[in-house]
Amino acid sequence: MASKPQAGRKKARARSTTAKPKQAKAAKSRVSKRKAVAKAPTAKQPEPARTAKDLAKGQRDISVSEFFAKNRHLLGFDNPSKALLTTVKEGVDNALDACEEASILPDIRVEIRQLSETRFCIAIQDNGPGIVRAQVPKIFGRLLYGSKFHRLRQSRGQQGIGISAAGMYGLLTTGKPIVIVTRTGPKKDAHHFELVIDTKLNAPKVKRDEVVKWDVPRGTRVEIELEGGYRGGQHSVDAYIRQISLANPHAQITYVPPKAEEHGAEHVFPRVTKVIPVETAEIKPHPHGVELGVLMQMFRDTKARNVRSCLQNDFSRVSSRTSGQILEAAKVAPNRRPSEAGRDEVERIHNAIQAAKIMAPPTDCIAPIGETLIEAALKSEVSAEFTVSISRRPTVYRGNPFLIEVGLAYGGDLPGDQTITLYRYANRVPLQYQQGACAITKAVTSTDWRSYQMQQPRGALPVGPMLLMVHIASVWVPFTSESKEAIAPYPEIIKELRLGLQECGRKVAGHIRKQRRHADEEKKRAYIVKYIPQVAVGLQEILDLNEKQRDKIVTELTHVLERSRKM
Amino acid sequence: MASKPQAGRKKARARSTTAKPKQAKAAKSRVSKRKAVAKAPTAKQPEPARTAKDLAKGQRDISVSEFFAKNRHLLGFDNPSKALLTTVKEGVDNALDACEEASILPDIRVEIRQLSETRFCIAIQDNGPGIVRAQVPKIFGRLLYGSKFHRLRQSRGQQGIGISAAGMYGLLTTGKPIVIVTRTGPKKDAHHFELVIDTKLNAPKVKRDEVVKWDVPRGTRVEIELEGGYRGGQHSVDAYIRQISLANPHAQITYVPPKAEEHGAEHVFPRVTKVIPVETAEIKPHPHGVELGVLMQMFRDTKARNVRSCLQNDFSRVSSRTSGQILEAAKVAPNRRPSEAGRDEVERIHNAIQAAKIMAPPTDCIAPIGETLIEAALKSEVSAEFTVSISRRPTVYRGNPFLIEVGLAYGGDLPGDQTITLYRYANRVPLQYQQGACAITKAVTSTDWRSYQMQQPRGALPVGPMLLMVHIASVWVPFTSESKEAIAPYPEIIKELRLGLQECGRKVAGHIRKQRRHADEEKKRAYIVKYIPQVAVGLQEILDLNEKQRDKIVTELTHVLERSRKM
Repeated sequence: MASKPQAGRKKARARSTTAKPKQAKAAKSRVSKRKAVAKAPTAKQPEPARTAKDLAKGQRDISVSEFFAKNRHLLGFDNPSKALLTTVKEGVDNALDACEEASILPDIRVEIRQLSETRFCIAIQDNGPGIVRAQVPKIFGRLLYGSKFHRLRQSRGQQGIGISAAGMYGLLTTGKPIVIVTRTGPKKDAHHFELVIDTKLNAPKVKRDEVVKWDVPRGTRVEIELEGGYRGGQHSVDAYIRQISLANPHAQITYVPPKAEEHGAEHVFPRVTKVIPVETAEIKPHPHGVELGVLMQMFRDTKARNVRSCLQNDFSRVSSRTSGQILEAAKVAPNRRPSEAGRDEVERIHNAIQAAKIMAPPTDCIAPIGETLIEAALKSEVSAEFTVSISRRPTVYRGNPFLIEVGLAYGGDLPGDQTITLYRYANRVPLQYQQGACAITKAVTSTDWRSYQMQQPRGALPVGPMLLMVHIASVWVPFTSESKEAIAPYPEIIKELRLGLQECGRKVAGHIRKQRRHADEEKKRAYIVKYIPQVAVGLQEILDLNEKQRDKIVTELTHVLERSRKM
Repeated sequence: MASKPQAGRKKARARSTTAKPKQAKAAKSRVSKRKAVAKAPTAKQPEPARTAKDLAKGQRDISVSEFFAKNRHLLGFDNPSKALLTTVKEGVDNALDACEEASILPDIRVEIRQLSETRFCIAIQDNGPGIVRAQVPKIFGRLLYGSKFHRLRQSRGQQGIGISAAGMYGLLTTGKPIVIVTRTGPKKDAHHFELVIDTKLNAPKVKRDEVVKWDVPRGTRVEIELEGGYRGGQHSVDAYIRQISLANPHAQITYVPPKAEEHGAEHVFPRVTKVIPVETAEIKPHPHGVELGVLMQMFRDTKARNVRSCLQNDFSRVSSRTSGQILEAAKVAPNRRPSEAGRDEVERIHNAIQAAKIMAPPTDCIAPIGETLIEAALKSEVSAEFTVSISRRPTVYRGNPFLIEVGLAYGGDLPGDQTITLYRYANRVPLQYQQGACAITKAVTSTDWRSYQMQQPRGALPVGPMLLMVHIASVWVPFTSESKEAIAPYPEIIKELRLGLQECGRKVAGHIRKQRRHADEEKKRAYIVKYIPQVAVGLQEILDLNEKQRDKIVTELTHVLERSRKM
């Protein structure tokens, strides 16, 4: 509670009289080892060297672009090779989102041209719906602008930062504008834009805007020139393209790596299904996830005329009956104007909401990859002897629906003496950095894989011939940073992840046990087979049999062995 | 390079004729296991379900407050107990910065009042210079506003987000405004403000603004009510207050934990020095750290009339001679107007800057804690048998000066069978979260402590009775997130950290060796001492001595032992 100034004054005076003995006591008990400087007898401090007025002169606004330009490692532009990967990722995320929103089977082209040792031109082209001319500058030349932030719906992008930030990084490192060609349909003009972001204003400056001929009937092409680095390995663009193709089997991706002309290699990752992921619904917030301050804001902004219809219309899963119960419990009249409800009333409503029984949020806002496609993806990725996959049912964290999928491949070509390979995905986008900080990794390391017949150093990933592919789909993925590299460990998410992993773990354990039993049988059988002739010879001698009878015994014993130890 | 639209068209057409065979080849070589869906004979796609026009309707601005309200885990408000700690931290950071900027010995008071199980009121009060009335709403009711972002100078805050975000979190969770009382001097009025942040506009809404009586002659008091959690342990407010007091020995901190009235405990952490840290200078950017895009921006914004004086005035360490050499190498006339320089010219200047020999940045912008005070802090924190500390000389990453300090305490009360304790600091602020993601941790785990006589599991923190206190001071600390919990692992920073750790490591190794030698001697001596009487009895028998002679032998042998094995 905000202390009233008068009270504050009283308290302050009270303190000045009582604080001293208390201080002395506390200092003795808690910080006894620390020697205080003797208080100077003239405790009066001199006038400050700088006054508040001096300091006020330095106060000013910081534009969000300036902020992220200076802190560009927050967006994934830490170093040249990561900057290159992040640019590709942001472009592909947008391309796939655009296609899916328009229900178009995505056909994406990623080109990386190397211009000098450290300079690259990245081009991402899609067959999406295109962008209307007026929107182009804002979408590409302004941070925090977009369509995905203010809604609750599953998509790859959600912040309205990514592609503009990539353009800003290109501008910072090369001074070159971002180039966009877009066309909204075969009968429409194709527009060619070149623009830069004015970081001080966080606003686009258009350098060129003209109609051009383009033999692509519909789609968008983005080109960014930047200082970058191209490298292989786990964090490479190549690995990214392969992984995103795995999680988006409905997309065809053509990838032209640097120096493709030399090697003549344009890699095509064809689609393995023609089914576009089910279109996800946009949902309203669930009342259980709403905070008091947000509820107050909603009451101020709502178009509803009374609190009852506000609760019913602006939230999901609030029926007429539920809203009635909530308002009764809160002792607020149902026909109260939302904008007139005071803080106390809203707080009572907020408390009543928490206590009310409300159905879980609808889950048609989530589009899983699906067990069949995950297994198909795993099989295309590795030659394993066993694969299994699980799509869990959707559930909720902080009011946001989410869903976990786990795919597991075991044995075969996978190396057995190393830590397992873990592919992490969020809304079908591979996460390649910050594995250690991710909820997915935490869930894997905190699962007891030893009970599933795997080796596992304490607190670490298991060791063995296994590939894990873990996917979280949500209307709002809680990333640990703007660069979207790891998922924040909400308890509800960790719990679901562990349940999915355990389900797969039990199945692989069954397989491993069967495999071991098999190997044991083989060993025993080989042992017995080896001694059958000796047994026969022994019997021959004891029973005085002829050679034919002896051979028959060998044959029969072998038969018996095969029947009894059928595998 | 941005492809010209005409060229783009030509290329696209060329692709459509040649792409097919290439695609087939690539698909075979790279993704042979993946079966493509047969192309439907009627490959023409239907019209998109949603057009670009439909999609454009959803596009809109996202205010930075909305962004951080939704992503508040980025700012350290992940959960109730962390939110409480973050609020205290942001308040104390600001209080200490304000005092030091005005050269006032800080006297900070932190109060936590528990209002209900999950609701707390946090108050932070300082004896700083106060805030002029007009600035109060913006400083506390707007994200990305402040004096510390646009300058290169060491301070705790640097983003202009912290305290407004804490106020926003309070508003979100309790609907209550942030309360500020501030006074710029004994003869000035004290102003009482209550304000909230309008997240949609990222702007303050003042609810109350009045002159009040306040018996504090100068300073600022901030009160925030929030949903929080109070807990103990490594991440507690108690641990934070103790650690910040360690790194700020010139500050007196009075801490009133929840339920202080019941326990009667107000903890005072008295100052151990009256010396305010040396006032740090604000510096200009060093040319070696500047990026091409930034240089272009500086040329557009400069007040200098020609490029030569721009280089000399707007950068540090560029003499008249250096700027002449740079411009000569870049083949740009020294009297060229900066705003008229084209991209090519600026790029040539940028390249010439990289090639030029330029003095390292000035380092008087960094204020170390100092070896003496670090050791004093360690001694006040633990009863160790050995302490050592190092302040490294300032050096530079990405043009930003920084400095590393390491303090090490060993033995004594410290537990020997556990992982060592690591206190991380950045600009005198303790870092309590994300230890695993921090450059400091990386530097410690990648140091070979076994060569310094310590146990160390591979890739982990060493094990033993040791406390490490590591401090990085810089004009711009590269945090891995807005919540300022961990330091990004720039190679230059890791290198300096390791050098500091190694220096301390060598010293503690000397101590441990000496200690072991000592223990060995003790063991041997005990062994010999035990047998001296037997030797004497033996000699007595062989030489036929009397008891007095035998006792004399014991005494003399003991003397000899003590002389020869003097320790």
